Amino acid sequence: MTKNPDFSPGVLSMLPLFYVGWSDSVLSPSEIKLIHKKLSAFDFLTDADKDYLIQYTDPKNPPSKETFKSWVTTLKENANRLNNVEKKSLADIGLEIAKSSTSYKNNELFNLPRTKDALYEIESALGVNGNGSLNLLLGKLDNKQSDLESFSFDPKSLQNTLDGDQAEVINRVRKLIRDPFFKFEHIADKEQYRQTTLAQLKELAKQGFGAYAFPSEFGGLDKIRESISVFETLAYNDNSLTIKYGVQFGLFGGAVYGLGTKRHHELYIDPLTKGELLGCFAMTETGHGSNVKGLQSTAHYNHENKTITINTPTHEDGKEYIGNALHSQMAAVFAQLIVNGENHGVHCILVPIRDKDNNLLEGVKAEDNGYKMGLNGVDNGRLWFDNVEVPLKNLLNKYGDISDDGEYMSPIENPNKRFFTMLGALVAGRVSVGLAGVSCSKTALAIAIKYGLKRKQFNGNSKEEEVTIMDYPSHQHRLIPLLSKTYAYHFALRALADRYAQADEKDMRKIETDAAGLKAMATWHNTRTIQECREACGGKGYLAENRFTNLKSDSDIFTTFEGDNTVLMQLVAKGVLTEFKQSFHNEGAMAILRFLGDKMSNTIAEFNPVTTRNTSFDHLTDRAFHREAFRYRYRKLLLTLSGRMNDYLKKRITPFDAFLKCQMHMLELAKAYTDRYVLYEFRQAIEKCNDEKNSKILNKICDLYCLTVINENKAWFLENDYMEGSKTKAIRRVISKLCQELRVDVLGLVEAWGIPNEVIAAPIALDD
Amino acid sequence: MTKNPDFSPGVLSMLPLFYVGWSDSVLSPSEIKLIHKKLSAFDFLTDADKDYLIQYTDPKNPPSKETFKSWVTTLKENANRLNNVEKKSLADIGLEIAKSSTSYKNNELFNLPRTKDALYEIESALGVNGNGSLNLLLGKLDNKQSDLESFSFDPKSLQNTLDGDQAEVINRVRKLIRDPFFKFEHIADKEQYRQTTLAQLKELAKQGFGAYAFPSEFGGLDKIRESISVFETLAYNDNSLTIKYGVQFGLFGGAVYGLGTKRHHELYIDPLTKGELLGCFAMTETGHGSNVKGLQSTAHYNHENKTITINTPTHEDGKEYIGNALHSQMAAVFAQLIVNGENHGVHCILVPIRDKDNNLLEGVKAEDNGYKMGLNGVDNGRLWFDNVEVPLKNLLNKYGDISDDGEYMSPIENPNKRFFTMLGALVAGRVSVGLAGVSCSKTALAIAIKYGLKRKQFNGNSKEEEVTIMDYPSHQHRLIPLLSKTYAYHFALRALADRYAQADEKDMRKIETDAAGLKAMATWHNTRTIQECREACGGKGYLAENRFTNLKSDSDIFTTFEGDNTVLMQLVAKGVLTEFKQSFHNEGAMAILRFLGDKMSNTIAEFNPVTTRNTSFDHLTDRAFHREAFRYRYRKLLLTLSGRMNDYLKKRITPFDAFLKCQMHMLELAKAYTDRYVLYEFRQAIEKCNDEKNSKILNKICDLYCLTVINENKAWFLENDYMEGSKTKAIRRVISKLCQELRVDVLGLVEAWGIPNEVIAAPIALDD
Repeated sequence: MTKNPDFSPGVLSMLPLFYVGWSDSVLSPSEIKLIHKKLSAFDFLTDADKDYLIQYTDPKNPPSKETFKSWVTTLKENANRLNNVEKKSLADIGLEIAKSSTSYKNNELFNLPRTKDALYEIESALGVNGNGSLNLLLGKLDNKQSDLESFSFDPKSLQNTLDGDQAEVINRVRKLIRDPFFKFEHIADKEQYRQTTLAQLKELAKQGFGAYAFPSEFGGLDKIRESISVFETLAYNDNSLTIKYGVQFGLFGGAVYGLGTKRHHELYIDPLTKGELLGCFAMTETGHGSNVKGLQSTAHYNHENKTITINTPTHEDGKEYIGNALHSQMAAVFAQLIVNGENHGVHCILVPIRDKDNNLLEGVKAEDNGYKMGLNGVDNGRLWFDNVEVPLKNLLNKYGDISDDGEYMSPIENPNKRFFTMLGALVAGRVSVGLAGVSCSKTALAIAIKYGLKRKQFNGNSKEEEVTIMDYPSHQHRLIPLLSKTYAYHFALRALADRYAQADEKDMRKIETDAAGLKAMATWHNTRTIQECREACGGKGYLAENRFTNLKSDSDIFTTFEGDNTVLMQLVAKGVLTEFKQSFHNEGAMAILRFLGDKMSNTIAEFNPVTTRNTSFDHLTDRAFHREAFRYRYRKLLLTLSGRMNDYLKKRITPFDAFLKCQMHMLELAKAYTDRYVLYEFRQAIEKCNDEKNSKILNKICDLYCLTVINENKAWFLENDYMEGSKTKAIRRVISKLCQELRVDVLGLVEAWGIPNEVIAAPIALDD
Repeated sequence: MTKNPDFSPGVLSMLPLFYVGWSDSVLSPSEIKLIHKKLSAFDFLTDADKDYLIQYTDPKNPPSKETFKSWVTTLKENANRLNNVEKKSLADIGLEIAKSSTSYKNNELFNLPRTKDALYEIESALGVNGNGSLNLLLGKLDNKQSDLESFSFDPKSLQNTLDGDQAEVINRVRKLIRDPFFKFEHIADKEQYRQTTLAQLKELAKQGFGAYAFPSEFGGLDKIRESISVFETLAYNDNSLTIKYGVQFGLFGGAVYGLGTKRHHELYIDPLTKGELLGCFAMTETGHGSNVKGLQSTAHYNHENKTITINTPTHEDGKEYIGNALHSQMAAVFAQLIVNGENHGVHCILVPIRDKDNNLLEGVKAEDNGYKMGLNGVDNGRLWFDNVEVPLKNLLNKYGDISDDGEYMSPIENPNKRFFTMLGALVAGRVSVGLAGVSCSKTALAIAIKYGLKRKQFNGNSKEEEVTIMDYPSHQHRLIPLLSKTYAYHFALRALADRYAQADEKDMRKIETDAAGLKAMATWHNTRTIQECREACGGKGYLAENRFTNLKSDSDIFTTFEGDNTVLMQLVAKGVLTEFKQSFHNEGAMAILRFLGDKMSNTIAEFNPVTTRNTSFDHLTDRAFHREAFRYRYRKLLLTLSGRMNDYLKKRITPFDAFLKCQMHMLELAKAYTDRYVLYEFRQAIEKCNDEKNSKILNKICDLYCLTVINENKAWFLENDYMEGSKTKAIRRVISKLCQELRVDVLGLVEAWGIPNEVIAAPIALDD
C-alpha cells in the first residue's frame, strides 16, 4: 500500500523512533549505546534492516538531507491514514505502519508481545518529547501546555524568543547534556573528575561540537556564532567541561586558526576539532597575568637551521594556570620573538609537548596546579621550556613571519597594533565567559526559585497556614531583581555575540570595549547571584547535591580569567575616553558644543523640580525616564572624568599618577557605560519581539531591571541632584510592587530558559 | 654551686627547653612525639632523669605551679650568672647550667658533641620564640622588633590590646594550630577528611580544650568565656575542626550541661570533655530549620515502665544536617514531650544511638548528608528514630520534668518562656559563629594584604617601575575598609562574649538581640570579605593551596546555621520594637516626649544647613558626628517603623500581613541598630586602651569604619536630607585619604592579629 517500497517492515517499525531521535540533530551517547544493544537482539529485523539502521546511530554520520526527507515522506504518507496518532506511542505507530506496508506478508514476529515491548523500551529511553516532534510533523497540536496556563505568557513561546536564531544548536546541546553520560555529579577526586571531563570532551568532539567555529574547507561547520552558543549552553551543566571545551576549541583552536595560516590549518584543524590532537593555550606567566606584553618566555630564531628555540628564562617565568596542560600533545606558546637579536614582541608558536603515549618531550616540564576552588575537572598546570627547538613552520605566522633570508616581516607595521590584533581572539573568550556567567546565574536562580515556591515557612503564628518563602518580600527582593538583571545581561551578551560573529575589523575596537565591560558586569552579577541563591536555600543550598557548591566554585574564577574584571573595567573607561576625545578631534568645536548643548538642555528638563520630584508610577515605569537617567549618569561621569584628567595633565602630573587618582572614577564610568549598553540591547530585543504577551512581560522585567540599576546608584543620583529623596523612595516602592507582580510569573520566567530538569538536577528544585 | 640540689645535671641541661616549652602552657602533639623519641636515646640522662622529664610531656599533666616555680627559680639563679644569655641558645644555657651544678662531677658525656647536637635538635623543633621567653624571664630585652619599626605603632603591643584578658588561652590555641598535626591541608575525600578532623578533635580533648566551658566539680575548667576564645582562635585554621569542636563541646556538651541536672552532669560531662563520649545535637528537622517550635519528632512518656519513646513520624521529619551524626554514640534529641496525651512542647532527651563498636542501635537510622560546599571534615547526617525507648532519667530535666506520679512539672509555668529559656544556649553558638566569621575574615585579609604588598603590577608604561598592587586606589578601596570593619566586629563580638559570660538572666533578652544582629552582620561581612580577597588575589586566589577555597566554602554556611541571617535580623527588629514599646508603657507619656524631644533637638542641630553641608576633614572625622549620624539613622528607622506598624494594626490588618509589609524596613532597622552597637563597643575598646600609639591607630580605623558605614548608607542619609550631596562626596574623598594613610600601616594591622605563619599557610602570602 505504501508508495515507498524501499523500506522493509522492520525499518518502518523503527522509523518513527529514528525520526524523533534525529529530529533534534543529535543522538546522545546513552541513546546510541542502548540502540546498538537492542537492535542486535531484535529478531523481527533482518540483517539488512540492522545494517541500514545501525549506520544512522553514528553521531558523526547523521542521515543526509535526502534520507531524512525520505523518512519524513514515508512517515507522513503512512501516519496520516492512522487515527488518533497524537494519542499513540511511537512504537505503536511504527508497528502499524510496518504491518500496513506492501512487503509485510503477515510476519508473525510483528505481532508478538516481546516485539512491542522491545520497541516500547527504546521509546522510553529516547523518551519524552517524541510525540511532540511527530505531531509537529503531522501538523497536529501538542496539548501538553495546559499546566502552564497560569502565567501571563506562554513560557515555550518566550523560550523561542530567548533562543532566537540559535535555537537549533542550543537544542542540540540541551539534548546532549540531558543524557546520563553528561549528568551533573560532584566528583571530589580531581584525577577521577579529570578523566570524566576528558571523556566528555571527546564525546563532544565525536558529536561534531568541536567543528562549529572553523571553516568548512578544513572540516569545520563555518558557524562561529553557534560555537559561542555551544559554550553558553554547556555552562548550564558542568563547567569543567565548558571550560575544557573552551580551551581546546576556543583558545587552542582559535590560536591555530586565527594566528596561523593555511599550512597550520591543513595540518591541525581537522584533528583538533575531532579531539585527536589536544592542545593548550600557553600565554599567562606567573608574574604576568594581565600583562601579556611583558611575557618573559623567549622564542629565538636560528637562521642556520631555520628553527625557533623556546625558552623559559627562570622558574618564575613558567607558564601558569594553563588549562589542558596535563592532557595536551601540543601547546600554543606565546613568547617574545627574537630575530637577529631584535625583539619583535609577543608571537605564538606551536610546540609539541607530549608524544603519543603522553610522555613529556625533552626539555618540557609540566606541573599540576593542584586542587582549585572549582573546575577540578580541568587539568590546569604550569609549563616550562628548556631551550626547546621547533621548526620555523611552527610559528603561527599570520601577523608576523620570517622570510627565507631570515628577516622578520609583518603585514602590520606598528608593533602595538600588531599585538592588539593578535589578542583580538580573546574577545570571543570574553563574550563566551560572560554568557557562561549568565547561564550559571540562570541555573542558580532556577533552583532557588523552584525551591522558594515549594518550601513552606512558619509565619510566627502557628495557627495561620504556612506560606511559601517566595511570598516573603525579603525573598522576592533577594531573587527577582537578580532575575531581571539576568534577563538583561542575556539580551546584551547575545546581541554582542551576534555583533562579534558578523564584525569586520573596523567594528572590533568598539566590540572589544563592550565585551570587556559586559564580561566584567555579567560575571560579577553571576558571583553575587549564586551567593544570594545559595543563602536563599539555607542549609539545603549548602549540600553539594543541590548544585550551588559547583556552580559557585566553578564560576568564581570567571571574574578573573579572560581578563581580571577590574582591569577590564579600566580598559572600558580608556576606550570610552579615547572615543570621546577622538570625536572631538574629528568634528572640532562643534561636537563639544553639541555634546554640552545636549547636556544643557537635559539639565533644564531633568532638573525641573517637577521631574526630580515626580513619583508617579507611570513616570517611574516610563522607559524614556530610564533612558534619560542612564544617559545622564554616563555623560556626567564621562565629562567630569575627562575634565579631571585634563586638569591633572595640565599640572604636569604623569599620566600614570593621573590614572591612579582617577581610578575609582574610571570604574564608575565603565559601569555607567555598560549599564547603558545593556539597556539599549534589552530595548532592541523587546522591539523585535512580535508576540504581545512576551513583549509585555519583557517590558515589565526591563522596568525592574532599570529601576534596580537606578536604585543601586541612587546615592549618585541624589548627590547630583538628579532626583530628590521623595523620588528615590518612590522607586523603592515601585520595585517592591514589580517584585510582587512578577511573583505569579516567576516560575514561567524560569521555565522560559529551557534548562532541562536533568541539568537542574538539584533535588530541592525538583518534584518529589 | 646551685642552691637547688634537687635537679640532676641531666635535668638541668634540659630545663631551659622544658621551661620554654611549658611557658605558653601547651605542648603540642609533635613536640611530645619528638621529645619522647629523643629522650629515650639520650645517654647523658639517667633513667631517673628520663622519668622526671617524661612525666612533664603529658599535656593533661602540666607541671604544677610549685614545680614550674622551682624551675623558674633554678633557671634565674643559674642563668643570671652567665654572660650574654640573650645571645645564647637554650641548649647552650642548659649545658652551662648543668656543668656548673654541684652534682656535675665531670661527667664527660656532657662534653661530647652529640650531646650538644641532641639538645640543639630539640631546641630547633620546639623552635622559635624560645629565647624571647627566657629573656623575658631573665628581664632582658627582646630586640627582635626592629624590622617592624616602620609602622606608626607596635604590632605586638596592639596584639596585646586585641587579645586582652583572653591572651593566655588564645596563645595556647595559637601554639597548637601551628603544630604540623593541625596543619591546614585541602583534603578532597570526605572520609579521609573526617578521620583527620576526628583525630584532631580527640587531640584537642586530650589537651584539655574540651573542658573549658564546664564546672570544675565535673572535671571542667570553669572558664566559659575562654571556651569561646578557643572556638574563635581555631577558626583561623581549619573550620571543620572548629565546627566539630563546637558541636561536641558547645552544642552537645552545652545541652547536657545547660538543660540537664546533676544526674546527667555526673555521668556525662567528664567523658564528653575527654572526647570519650561523642555526641550530637539533634534539633533541626527537614522542613523546620528556623521553626524549632514546630518540630515533628515526638517523645511519649510511658508511665508503666517509666520510659520515653522517641519517634520520627514520617521520613520528612527526620533530623537533618546533624553534625557528628556519623561518629556519635549519643544524640541530644529535641522532640515534643507528650505526657498523658498532653503535649508540653519541645524538650531534649539523651538517646544512645551507637554501641561501643560504633554500630547503630536498633530503631535508629542514620544517613550521610554527602558532600557539602565546605566543612567536609564534619560528618553531617540525617537521623530517624523508630519508636526508640529510653529511660525517663535520660530526659534533660532542668526546665521540665515528670514526677514519680507521672505528672509533668516545670519550674517555668509559661510554656513559651520555658521554650525560650531552653533555647538560650543557642546564644553562645551565635556569639561564637560571629567570632569565627571575624577570624576567617582576618585570615583572608592577612593573605590578600600580604600578597598585595608582594605582587607587582605593570602600570601601562613599561618604562616606569612596577608598583605593588596595594598601591592602587582600587585595591586599597577593596581591602582596607573591609579591614576596618573586621576590627570593628572584633571588638563588638569580644565585648558581647564578655557580657554573655557574665550575664545573669535579666540581661539575656538584650544579649540575645545583640547576638542575633552581630552574628548576622559579622557573617555577611565575612562572606563578602573572603570573596573580595579571593578576587583581589586573581587566579592565585583560586588555587586551593592559597586557602580561600576552604575559607570561603567552609564559612559560607555561617550566614545560615545557628539561625538564618535574615530571620535573625527580624528577631533583632522585633526585640528593638518590643523594648521601645515597653519603655513607653513603663514610663508613660513622658518617655515619648523625651524621645521625641531628643529627636526634635537633634533635628534642629542636624538639619542646620551648616551641618548638612559641612565637608571639613575635622568634622568628618569627628566621632561626635559619626555617633549622631548612626543614632539618627537608628531612631528615625525605629520611629517610622513603629508608626507604620501601628497604622496597619489600626486598619485591622493582621499582624502577619503587617509584618510582611514592613519586612524590608525591619531589616534596615536591625542593621542600623547593630551598626550603632558595634560603634559603641569600638569606642569603649579605644577608651580602655592605654597605649597612645595603639589608641591613635585604632581611632583612625574607627574613623574609616564609621565613614564606610555612612557611605554604604549614604543614599538613606541623602533621601532623608540629613546630608547634602557635597557632604557625601566629601566623605568619599576622606575614605580615600584614610585608605591611603593606612596603606603604610596595613601590614602591622594584619600582624597584630597574631595569626601564625603556619596557619596563614598560603604560599602567595609567605616569603619565598
